[in-house]
Amino acid sequence: MFTLPQKDFRAPTTCLGPTCTQDLGSSHGDDLEGECSRKLDQKLPELCGVGDPATISSDTSYLSSRGRMIKWFWDSAEEGYRTYHMDEYDEDKNPSGIINLGTSENKLCFDLLSWRLSQSDMQRVEPSLLQYADWRGHLFLREEVAKFLSFYCKSPVPLRPENVVVLNGGASLFSALATVLCEAGEAFLIPTPYYGAITQHMCLYGNVRLAYVYLDSEVTGLDTRPFQLTVEKLEMALREAHSEGIKVKGLILINPQNPLGDIYSLEELQEYLVFAKRLPDPQRTHVMWATSKDFGMSGLRFGTLYTENQDVATAVASLCRYHGLSGLVQYQMAQLLRDRDWINQVYLPENHARLKAAHTYVSEELRALGIPFLSRGAGFFIWVDLRKYLPKGTFEEEMLLWRRFLDNKVLLSFGKAFECKEPGWFRFVFSDQAHRLCLGMQRVRQVLAGKSQVAEDPRPSQSQEPSDQHSSGKHLKLWFSLGPPSLLLNKTRRVHMSPL
Amino acid sequence: MFTLPQKDFRAPTTCLGPTCTQDLGSSHGDDLEGECSRKLDQKLPELCGVGDPATISSDTSYLSSRGRMIKWFWDSAEEGYRTYHMDEYDEDKNPSGIINLGTSENKLCFDLLSWRLSQSDMQRVEPSLLQYADWRGHLFLREEVAKFLSFYCKSPVPLRPENVVVLNGGASLFSALATVLCEAGEAFLIPTPYYGAITQHMCLYGNVRLAYVYLDSEVTGLDTRPFQLTVEKLEMALREAHSEGIKVKGLILINPQNPLGDIYSLEELQEYLVFAKRLPDPQRTHVMWATSKDFGMSGLRFGTLYTENQDVATAVASLCRYHGLSGLVQYQMAQLLRDRDWINQVYLPENHARLKAAHTYVSEELRALGIPFLSRGAGFFIWVDLRKYLPKGTFEEEMLLWRRFLDNKVLLSFGKAFECKEPGWFRFVFSDQAHRLCLGMQRVRQVLAGKSQVAEDPRPSQSQEPSDQHSSGKHLKLWFSLGPPSLLLNKTRRVHMSPL
Repeated sequence: MFTLPQKDFRAPTTCLGPTCTQDLGSSHGDDLEGECSRKLDQKLPELCGVGDPATISSDTSYLSSRGRMIKWFWDSAEEGYRTYHMDEYDEDKNPSGIINLGTSENKLCFDLLSWRLSQSDMQRVEPSLLQYADWRGHLFLREEVAKFLSFYCKSPVPLRPENVVVLNGGASLFSALATVLCEAGEAFLIPTPYYGAITQHMCLYGNVRLAYVYLDSEVTGLDTRPFQLTVEKLEMALREAHSEGIKVKGLILINPQNPLGDIYSLEELQEYLVFAKRLPDPQRTHVMWATSKDFGMSGLRFGTLYTENQDVATAVASLCRYHGLSGLVQYQMAQLLRDRDWINQVYLPENHARLKAAHTYVSEELRALGIPFLSRGAGFFIWVDLRKYLPKGTFEEEMLLWRRFLDNKVLLSFGKAFECKEPGWFRFVFSDQAHRLCLGMQRVRQVLAGKSQVAEDPRPSQSQEPSDQHSSGKHLKLWFSLGPPSLLLNKTRRVHMSPL
Repeated sequence: MFTLPQKDFRAPTTCLGPTCTQDLGSSHGDDLEGECSRKLDQKLPELCGVGDPATISSDTSYLSSRGRMIKWFWDSAEEGYRTYHMDEYDEDKNPSGIINLGTSENKLCFDLLSWRLSQSDMQRVEPSLLQYADWRGHLFLREEVAKFLSFYCKSPVPLRPENVVVLNGGASLFSALATVLCEAGEAFLIPTPYYGAITQHMCLYGNVRLAYVYLDSEVTGLDTRPFQLTVEKLEMALREAHSEGIKVKGLILINPQNPLGDIYSLEELQEYLVFAKRLPDPQRTHVMWATSKDFGMSGLRFGTLYTENQDVATAVASLCRYHGLSGLVQYQMAQLLRDRDWINQVYLPENHARLKAAHTYVSEELRALGIPFLSRGAGFFIWVDLRKYLPKGTFEEEMLLWRRFLDNKVLLSFGKAFECKEPGWFRFVFSDQAHRLCLGMQRVRQVLAGKSQVAEDPRPSQSQEPSDQHSSGKHLKLWFSLGPPSLLLNKTRRVHMSPL
């Protein structure tokens, strides 16, 4: 269930316990959004115990053992994103720079967003916005969030502002929820492949670990599609965690799945929630939503918790003094969320059309190359099966292939960064401008063409036609019911944390 | 050195160890800024140990033990600020509502700030501001912060952007620094009375404690003024901590002192830093600055770390994914900091004049009432000696007097909230509009007049004329030298964290 640290790594021995060690050898973490590369030969400094002055004093950094672990996560992101940042592609200034198809951002609608955020209604600077305010967020914003989610999630009853807590992004929400729901060393179940940065969000402050529910691409037995999550797999992972003495406190579900671009069906979500509490329980189901994906504004730093559990809402609010967002941004967010005309008539249809065109381009390129891929049309990414380019099918080869892409000036995310158990899967982010996408795919083709001598792959292609979910005319698509069963789905990113 | 929890409180028994217990019985913490009241009869729920499912499952909140502690800090702020928020004074709508002289905010310059932040140069919405960025902060902002602090701190050599990390406020900086510098359960020395919310900032995420250096108002021996911090007192507190098995990792110095409104002299700061490292060491001296006080914008959420220690800078940056501020705010802050004409010719002189007028009004009111106070003219507050209104000189009487003020619709902060060891001191915030200040002081007079029958105080008055630091014509006044000795002073708020 837990990956073992590589032999080069030494685990923290005390305050972190084994909590963070499961990921020290893996390659997720980033200086941007979570999917990148770590140098395989990196070595975490030996973390010494509390009250071991001899060891501490021999370290000239003056950092605590957890401080060194935290710094390690930063340093280890170097190879991918730092290489990229030193050599970013620019059409005019650096046309031979690196194209970034690795960061899950939507770069297609900045013109629309810049226009909207520059309108005069955004510029109000009331004294109350410059003062200390309710750490849960200004009431006017929580009211708008409740109305917005009620509408777009099609809630049967209106969501309530008192169940809303706003803060500066999804990462902070993971950190706060993990801390208030779990003791140090406890764990959440999470299906893999998964968005790797969640490891840090659980661990850096909260010292909470992840227990993996490994999925694979084989379609056998009751599985009807690759990487399908079933209650049986959840049960097995839970039993395995228990057998290893790991206390599992909850289940994390992300919808649409990242990196699969997959959406859990209503029936599936219901099954998972029944598993989590044997009966779906709104008091134990905490929903996260952020604007990074749905509004393509990861730099705005806005996230929100919705929970009916007032103890959890209050505890998270208490931590919000460390995750607060500017009153000015709260005001702008409220203005944006209440502008249904612009959202429905301008932003959503235009965003949808641009995403669909970009998705069509990349998927047709892949099809022309004979490369299998999974994409059910949600998210900003396509999960690409490059296994046939790895003669031995090892993670070392996966890393070599990733580096070959990077050397040819295109940054991608490899499967190990998502704890995918099968070497050879890559995530391609398609939500970028046509000229960059085109050049990026051209560079991908060059690399793969140089590998044309590899053995033929005997496995059947698993490419799936993207369903037409991008063409629904509505990018946001959330279902949400507040009575049990408590369900939520959307097209870009939605997170459930459901304690067991 | 550590206050004991009240008998009603039961300490967390495991993951928090004794770390947070020293403050559970005290009265700081807030839902706003840190100085308020806790109900004396409040009871922290018993915190159970990790892996004690019987106890955990008996709790219906689903919170972890640390989650319950975190929630407790929120709930316990109820009496003061929540009473205030339910009945806020409004000149037109609620003229009999509560006047807040308790929150250390500058409410005198919102007109200037609103005007400046509404100018057209603030409205730029570049795509890069809406994307993931360097978690240390955009380079353009770190460059402006370095230039700004170089200029106003009179740095002999220019400060460097690579030593700057920006995040969403001073509270986050305390949390991040405590976590990366200390193991769980270790401590920082802090002179009391001190800004009480620092307890939470150390403890909620980092599980780091404070070791108090108790100061008092007596002027005896080598002490030349009330509440003077000396190296001897630091040495004694350090010895006491060691004797209790507490590992002290650093010293927190806040300049100007809150609640004293006091400024450490250059010579004093040098002595303290020599104490901290026996020789001032830039690698061990980490400087925090935030705009809440100097720019009167606590709702903007902007703080910055300056450290020459790249390990510390990197580790804090790694945590900044949970303390990030919007790209739009980063842009606005850079615009503000680079506008020296407006800062020097409009904001600083006008802010200074208004603060001085407000300070003069409150101090003259106090003088007319024959009430001793300390105020050396820095900060937004006056440290007021109401000991003669406490016949027995107990903290229970202090709380009763505080409640009498609140019942008469004026919110103040009492000394126990700052861990002042002498009952009877109150902090009066004077940085408010004249009509509110006038009404607030009138209500204070009414309460004290009702207490005129108390025994005469035989102690000599300790009122000190405020020095003319408000009239220096320059509100910001920082000294900063980067070579050893590393020193820093300013007029509103500056924090040192100097590991021992």
